Amino acid sequence: MLERYEILKNYLGPIDLRHMSYQELEKLAEEVRDYILEVTAKNGGHVAPSLGVVELTIALLRIFDPPKDVIVWDIGHQAYPWKILTDRKEKFSTLRQYGGISGFLRREESLYDAFGAGHSSTSISAALGFRKAMDLLGQDGYVVAVIGDGAMTAGMAYEALNNAGHLRPNRFIVILNDNEMSISPNVGAISTYLSRIISGEFVQHARQKVKKLLEHIKPADRIAKLTEEFLKGLISPGVIFEELGFNYIGPINGHDLRALEQTLKNVKHIEGPVLLHVYTKKGKGYKPAENDPVTWHGVAPYKRESGEFIKKPSPPTWTSVFSKAIVELAQMEPRLVVITPAMREGSGLVEFSQKFPDRFFDVGIAEQHACTFAAGLAAQGLKPVACYYSTFLQRAYDQVIHDVALQNLHVVFAIDRGGLVGDDGPTHHGVFDLSYLRCIPNMVVCAPKDEQELRDLLYTAVMHHSGPIAVRYPRGPAYGVPTEGFKEIPIGSWEELVEGQDVVVLAVGYPVYQALKASEDLYKLGIKVGVINARFVKPMDERLLDSLAGRYDLFITVEDNTVVGGFGSGVLEYFARKGIQKRVITLGVPDRFIEHGNQNLLRSLVGIDAEGIKKVILEAVKSKA
Amino acid sequence: MLERYEILKNYLGPIDLRHMSYQELEKLAEEVRDYILEVTAKNGGHVAPSLGVVELTIALLRIFDPPKDVIVWDIGHQAYPWKILTDRKEKFSTLRQYGGISGFLRREESLYDAFGAGHSSTSISAALGFRKAMDLLGQDGYVVAVIGDGAMTAGMAYEALNNAGHLRPNRFIVILNDNEMSISPNVGAISTYLSRIISGEFVQHARQKVKKLLEHIKPADRIAKLTEEFLKGLISPGVIFEELGFNYIGPINGHDLRALEQTLKNVKHIEGPVLLHVYTKKGKGYKPAENDPVTWHGVAPYKRESGEFIKKPSPPTWTSVFSKAIVELAQMEPRLVVITPAMREGSGLVEFSQKFPDRFFDVGIAEQHACTFAAGLAAQGLKPVACYYSTFLQRAYDQVIHDVALQNLHVVFAIDRGGLVGDDGPTHHGVFDLSYLRCIPNMVVCAPKDEQELRDLLYTAVMHHSGPIAVRYPRGPAYGVPTEGFKEIPIGSWEELVEGQDVVVLAVGYPVYQALKASEDLYKLGIKVGVINARFVKPMDERLLDSLAGRYDLFITVEDNTVVGGFGSGVLEYFARKGIQKRVITLGVPDRFIEHGNQNLLRSLVGIDAEGIKKVILEAVKSKA
Repeated sequence: MLERYEILKNYLGPIDLRHMSYQELEKLAEEVRDYILEVTAKNGGHVAPSLGVVELTIALLRIFDPPKDVIVWDIGHQAYPWKILTDRKEKFSTLRQYGGISGFLRREESLYDAFGAGHSSTSISAALGFRKAMDLLGQDGYVVAVIGDGAMTAGMAYEALNNAGHLRPNRFIVILNDNEMSISPNVGAISTYLSRIISGEFVQHARQKVKKLLEHIKPADRIAKLTEEFLKGLISPGVIFEELGFNYIGPINGHDLRALEQTLKNVKHIEGPVLLHVYTKKGKGYKPAENDPVTWHGVAPYKRESGEFIKKPSPPTWTSVFSKAIVELAQMEPRLVVITPAMREGSGLVEFSQKFPDRFFDVGIAEQHACTFAAGLAAQGLKPVACYYSTFLQRAYDQVIHDVALQNLHVVFAIDRGGLVGDDGPTHHGVFDLSYLRCIPNMVVCAPKDEQELRDLLYTAVMHHSGPIAVRYPRGPAYGVPTEGFKEIPIGSWEELVEGQDVVVLAVGYPVYQALKASEDLYKLGIKVGVINARFVKPMDERLLDSLAGRYDLFITVEDNTVVGGFGSGVLEYFARKGIQKRVITLGVPDRFIEHGNQNLLRSLVGIDAEGIKKVILEAVKSKA
Repeated sequence: MLERYEILKNYLGPIDLRHMSYQELEKLAEEVRDYILEVTAKNGGHVAPSLGVVELTIALLRIFDPPKDVIVWDIGHQAYPWKILTDRKEKFSTLRQYGGISGFLRREESLYDAFGAGHSSTSISAALGFRKAMDLLGQDGYVVAVIGDGAMTAGMAYEALNNAGHLRPNRFIVILNDNEMSISPNVGAISTYLSRIISGEFVQHARQKVKKLLEHIKPADRIAKLTEEFLKGLISPGVIFEELGFNYIGPINGHDLRALEQTLKNVKHIEGPVLLHVYTKKGKGYKPAENDPVTWHGVAPYKRESGEFIKKPSPPTWTSVFSKAIVELAQMEPRLVVITPAMREGSGLVEFSQKFPDRFFDVGIAEQHACTFAAGLAAQGLKPVACYYSTFLQRAYDQVIHDVALQNLHVVFAIDRGGLVGDDGPTHHGVFDLSYLRCIPNMVVCAPKDEQELRDLLYTAVMHHSGPIAVRYPRGPAYGVPTEGFKEIPIGSWEELVEGQDVVVLAVGYPVYQALKASEDLYKLGIKVGVINARFVKPMDERLLDSLAGRYDLFITVEDNTVVGGFGSGVLEYFARKGIQKRVITLGVPDRFIEHGNQNLLRSLVGIDAEGIKKVILEAVKSKA
């Protein structure tokens, strides 16, 4: 695969970079971009972020000496050049495939991946940990965190800056990779501030103020000039970072390899922590990505030449069903407002944001704030729908408990990417939410079996409920069920889809149709499998459960959530509370972190698809017989 | 009780404040302080924070018009004057008692409590929610958040500032109540920054720079003077807040009622969001609290005249046992380091911080950063012990999963205040941790039955384990068991304390001794109750469980954690997995938020003390017979 890359094919590792001329390095940068496009066109992946940091990666590898020097990349979706140029150029072709290398950084994958990531804004905290550990262990070396301007909107980054500015470690460099984007264009005051720095507006503004003053007092030219120079020195464009105890350097062009290297060499000698402000272009070197970096942040396979996406015919995604429903609901209910922590595109909110700009709040990468902000909106009588990816809602766990549930406020949590998400892997699977939400008092937790039920549950949550409620649905294509209108679903009600005899499957969310399939198949073998759509994980349909307990001795629960403390445990708890002793088999995601790979492959591997359910039923029935 | 307070006894509500002279208001402030001291001397409570904001409370109630204007107090432990002067002057004598009023703010308690709190740094987010809701609903009125400088170190506050600075709402005022303390003296760059503002150092520094310059260029005096004035205007001391889009006003003296009121009147007319920087003295008006605001942040009952604490003889607290153990462990293990998010005193780390200043990291109110910082330290080979209150660990949930557990890093979580904490109530009970930690892969979760076992589990966690592990213990006095040395406890091993016959109790943590007591009492009635110390919630002692399943038909699990998804569910899951059908009764905290009140009273109310266990066993045995 690498044969056609003149420099890359013979490239052995970072040491090679030291001996290359700038001309060769530029050629290499081109090849790395080329190779990233070749692989992602087939596998999909985070194209635009990675294309933006090729020169920065080369400069870091030339000026620093990892793994002795520790380089911590934030999130890791910009780490493809890093993977290629450290030690994974061959394996890179297996990117995001089951058994292949991860789309993010992983300590298990390489010594060069000092700290794994996937979620945003952890790098400064982790890097500070490395720094203090190295200081205490008497180890030399530099520690560098590379963090995007989007990630800077997260509170966690600020907490880390605040701590680092206090500890003032040496040989500690935070590189702010500023492309004026997170996934969407950034929002928030800090982004405006950073933009003003890059545009030079900050210094210009100061200069203009000085000029205005000087006009009045008409001093000698020399004094004016001196004052101006002085003021430029006095007011650093990075004043926020300076006030937080950092040495601010920048902004510098992150695609100018010579400038980058010279600056990195210089900052090595600065005492105290350094914030180096680099500006880059997301998608650099590939026109479709440069022109539309939002779309090209992370993509499915595409045609390299045209940038056209290779679309497989498939049912609409759960996200797109949500997207349409939320607009319709907003038309019905003027008090409905929407909050997203920087996931406008991913959560399917583009249309909503265009139709209802006043009722749409993208608060930046700020999951904690998003939740309590929603609580405030609810406390004053609005109906906030707070949109999270399941895995990122973990960031707002305390706020869900302390600000929403404890006050029993009517916040609707629309939780996308519940269950196994596929290619993004263990950092992104949403397989803990049913467990960590179910244990919170006052919370209603539900998951739809199909598209229409997603609409109906959202409708119920917004229009017919008045406390905290979570509606949770998977990533990817849904079942292709036609949708129309809305209807109320009584809170806590389940659906008996198939009456059986030998065994009953209680399934929640995505697995319901899998259970139906299993039931159909087994009917042909003479096994009569009842199927229940247990759409409410909390509260459960206790009346139906009691009735089922009178009819069945063997229960199978299925969920795309960990088997620890999830829906299945809820059923066990209920039976224990009622003194009902039944054989219950709980299927779900096992108690270990699940790798990346095709979503349906992963579902099959953990046994929550129709085949898995069938297999378990056959075994159970056999052992009973 | 109020008879002796000349003004307060006839006080009917905020409207009365409008008609008082400054002389009367000063007298009232004195009486409010007096009353706070009278009540807290008996009930205990947050003395110093509340004494610091008496004038600020009066000014807010005179210049604003709640509940039409919304005042959101951060944390709420400074809200005693607010409670007294709004609508709870009589009820205030029931502060923090079961059935009485809460020590924090509660929406259920009063219309004046716009937004409940207990955890830090939520106020700006909530206030912004109120603001946007009022804007959308076309409602007039101001929204004010009052937040301490300590709370400003939390990422959540920054996320909210960033969002508010972007939205730039009008009639939105953040009052930064700066007493240069959180509970302990503040740490972090932002605190240093704020101190420099208050001391005037910021402006002085700018002036000196100007002077130095002017010395060189020797301009006419008039120019020098003008330049200086100009610079003062150009460089706002609140430059960070200005850059984030706020109008910065201050700093002003928060005990000067006239100045406060004049400023509040003025800021009402400023366009865009305002940050008003007020400095106050924690403990103001009570010498012992002024002199030692750390101790007097929150206190047990005390003698008013001397400030001496009324100590009831009781065994050492779990915290103090931890405190001693961690110092001893640090002496044995040079790689042990300690991290606390601003809980040096509360977590029992004062001695450690004095003995090992280089190995002690107070990172400020920054739970997210604290966890990932610990992960970074562990990744480089140290043995971090991250100390959290159970309820505050909820703030770092994602970091526990994503940064620690997923990478299987050796971080020891020392979790204080697990279970029901008593007087602080629902915002502070640590009753979800066993559930939300148990569902995380790779996590070991354990809880000691007594003091010696706390030491042994810590020792095991630090010295004989190499992945994430949580050691969780309660607030308050332990059992008075003598302690000595350390011994390793095999991970996952339980202890069979009593062999029984009719029923076996599996207890974890605090309830173990309660189960022993129940077992003893029931023995006299001829009921033979086995008792197991199930110190590991995860992994469980499966061999012992199998053996017990062979010997007993009735199992009782007891934990001071919610019954949803906790230890009891773990036992149910195991039995289900093994196809073992037994009667299991799970005792624990019921699935609702538990009020404040005496800790043992609450334990008794939810039935996890000896009496509660006995009662359940008697009923179960009776129904079986």
